[in-house]
Amino acid sequence: MPELSISHRTRSTPFTDRVTAAGVKAYTVYNHMLLPTVFRSLTEDYHHLKSAVQLWDVSCERQVEITGPDAARLAQLMTPRDLSKQRIGQCLYTPTCDIRGHVLNDPVTIKIAEDRYWVSIADSDIILFARGLAAGMGLDVQIVEPDIYPLAVQGPKAEDLMARVFGDTIRETKFFGTQTHWFGGLEHLIARSGYSGQGGFEIYTNGAAACPALWDTLMEAGRDLDVHAGCPNLIERVEAGLLSYGNDITARHTLHETGLARFCKTISPDCIAAPRLNQMPEPERQLRYLSLDGAPMKPITRPVPLHCEGQPAGQISTAIWSPDYGTNIAIGMVSAEITSATDKIVTADDRVTTILNGPIVTARSQAA
Amino acid sequence: MPELSISHRTRSTPFTDRVTAAGVKAYTVYNHMLLPTVFRSLTEDYHHLKSAVQLWDVSCERQVEITGPDAARLAQLMTPRDLSKQRIGQCLYTPTCDIRGHVLNDPVTIKIAEDRYWVSIADSDIILFARGLAAGMGLDVQIVEPDIYPLAVQGPKAEDLMARVFGDTIRETKFFGTQTHWFGGLEHLIARSGYSGQGGFEIYTNGAAACPALWDTLMEAGRDLDVHAGCPNLIERVEAGLLSYGNDITARHTLHETGLARFCKTISPDCIAAPRLNQMPEPERQLRYLSLDGAPMKPITRPVPLHCEGQPAGQISTAIWSPDYGTNIAIGMVSAEITSATDKIVTADDRVTTILNGPIVTARSQAA
Repeated sequence: MPELSISHRTRSTPFTDRVTAAGVKAYTVYNHMLLPTVFRSLTEDYHHLKSAVQLWDVSCERQVEITGPDAARLAQLMTPRDLSKQRIGQCLYTPTCDIRGHVLNDPVTIKIAEDRYWVSIADSDIILFARGLAAGMGLDVQIVEPDIYPLAVQGPKAEDLMARVFGDTIRETKFFGTQTHWFGGLEHLIARSGYSGQGGFEIYTNGAAACPALWDTLMEAGRDLDVHAGCPNLIERVEAGLLSYGNDITARHTLHETGLARFCKTISPDCIAAPRLNQMPEPERQLRYLSLDGAPMKPITRPVPLHCEGQPAGQISTAIWSPDYGTNIAIGMVSAEITSATDKIVTADDRVTTILNGPIVTARSQAA
Repeated sequence: MPELSISHRTRSTPFTDRVTAAGVKAYTVYNHMLLPTVFRSLTEDYHHLKSAVQLWDVSCERQVEITGPDAARLAQLMTPRDLSKQRIGQCLYTPTCDIRGHVLNDPVTIKIAEDRYWVSIADSDIILFARGLAAGMGLDVQIVEPDIYPLAVQGPKAEDLMARVFGDTIRETKFFGTQTHWFGGLEHLIARSGYSGQGGFEIYTNGAAACPALWDTLMEAGRDLDVHAGCPNLIERVEAGLLSYGNDITARHTLHETGLARFCKTISPDCIAAPRLNQMPEPERQLRYLSLDGAPMKPITRPVPLHCEGQPAGQISTAIWSPDYGTNIAIGMVSAEITSATDKIVTADDRVTTILNGPIVTARSQAA
């Protein structure tokens, strides 16, 4: 693999020195910021994540902070998900749509106060969309990227580790709920959330200064839990069915094609995409989970076309070998006319490909 | 250096296979797309760029295409530069500003037709800013990212190479002027432009299908000119004084701080930033070119703080050793109170640092 040239533009984080010392082997760039992708190896990191606990530098989950009298209005303009009943401190998964109903991002929106929201973004500059909308509509808001650096603690032992540092009350946090805790003389928001199916927390570290000590304290407290530096793991996230914006979803896809409409049962009439979304015909393609026969696959670097009976049938955007399930697993956009879940066979790269009912975790547990 | 994990999200380009075959050693990610940074070595690439001709895969210079009755209005809303006299086919360097007068990008805007513009962007999602503004104001425009893949031909022999493939009329193209030429059955826009001080052209390759043959034809035609795969070169671009958005300029800087206001002598009253820009006080810091004493510097990965008489005085965003000038050269934001150009001394990393009147190329030629 080629090297990554690191510059100020591919921003380092307050955890980067720790990540380097922990032996990071590869990065990607996410929201113009370094995101580790491999420490020991993709497979070693995977087994460890599923059995122990890891610290992830996910500073690249940048916050778009919207404050002011029109903050709630702007937050709602950007997503079809109804935010009217969102409680302070509650996280909601909020696909962002443009006026055409295409997906611009799939962030988590946190209501910090009645007039203050954090949009915790995937990899696209939603701050520019927010600033454009606010300027165009003359909204009374401030929109900034605050100095918040999320640190994820993920894995089956994550809760035990967090309780050692933040006390047993952290165990009471519900999924997508939050608490605030003091560390290093500052208050930090902590959510039960994270980009894995193993459970865990995300600490929205308040300012760069607190980061190194927080990392060191968690590492020290978790030594006997085999805590290790980690990162979102390609294999585990596909097993868990977690989508990646830019890979599985892009701005070329509508909300309905991505299946994210299930998070927006009531499409808010106050979202700019509502008129279009409400009159959209059934999509001609849909995001699906797949399994692929044949030899173990390495990460794909470009989409792989799908075929069904010789005809184009979509493309795979992510694929990888799952050691625990003993098959290649994938995510892709599949022609809607291939309706049946498991009895239709398509081929990708001459591999027999089966459409699953959901992520491999679900599909196997349903079969069991 | 760590490796780069390449995925669909860090998009490959229609030239990537050629770039790989040419032995690319390192990449960065730019507009969610691969941008080569090193082929032989930073220094070898530099000497070759200044003596021969290179092909650069700069597909990552994505186009934001704005079409429709309100296209000209939207293009003008985003930049303080007056576009009212722009001719069809003319390129203009057009800093993009938000309502606060902060710089969101520094693209080149090309007027393709009265109702059609291409904004050829640096590294931030200006398409989202454009979509937000258009939705907020209810503008009648279409905003898309077309399948255009810029290929730069740069170096002192670039014109000769281009003339061999596109004919001698290409020599008549003025700087930031364009011509259209046929290749592979398609018409392509060609501009005399590019991110080097060596002169050359950028071919806005019309569609992915034409790219491999275009690359091969130029390589074949330029064999005796020592044509080689290349990329924007860190050393050469700092020598030439070319700024890098995300490095030297960010959204935390105002137009006046960056010095880009000199491209906007008349601030268009139709730009959303105009009210703020027109009442902005003199900036407290300004972008400056610098030279640094001491041993040859490697590329810096983070900003380096500047001090003057023990007080903070700004920071350097880019620095590198210039073999041809025999000094380290840099770009940074310097406190405005350090006014005199050359007689004030600041220090960065314990290196004696001199503020230049302009890029090292200019500074030395003025001295000569």
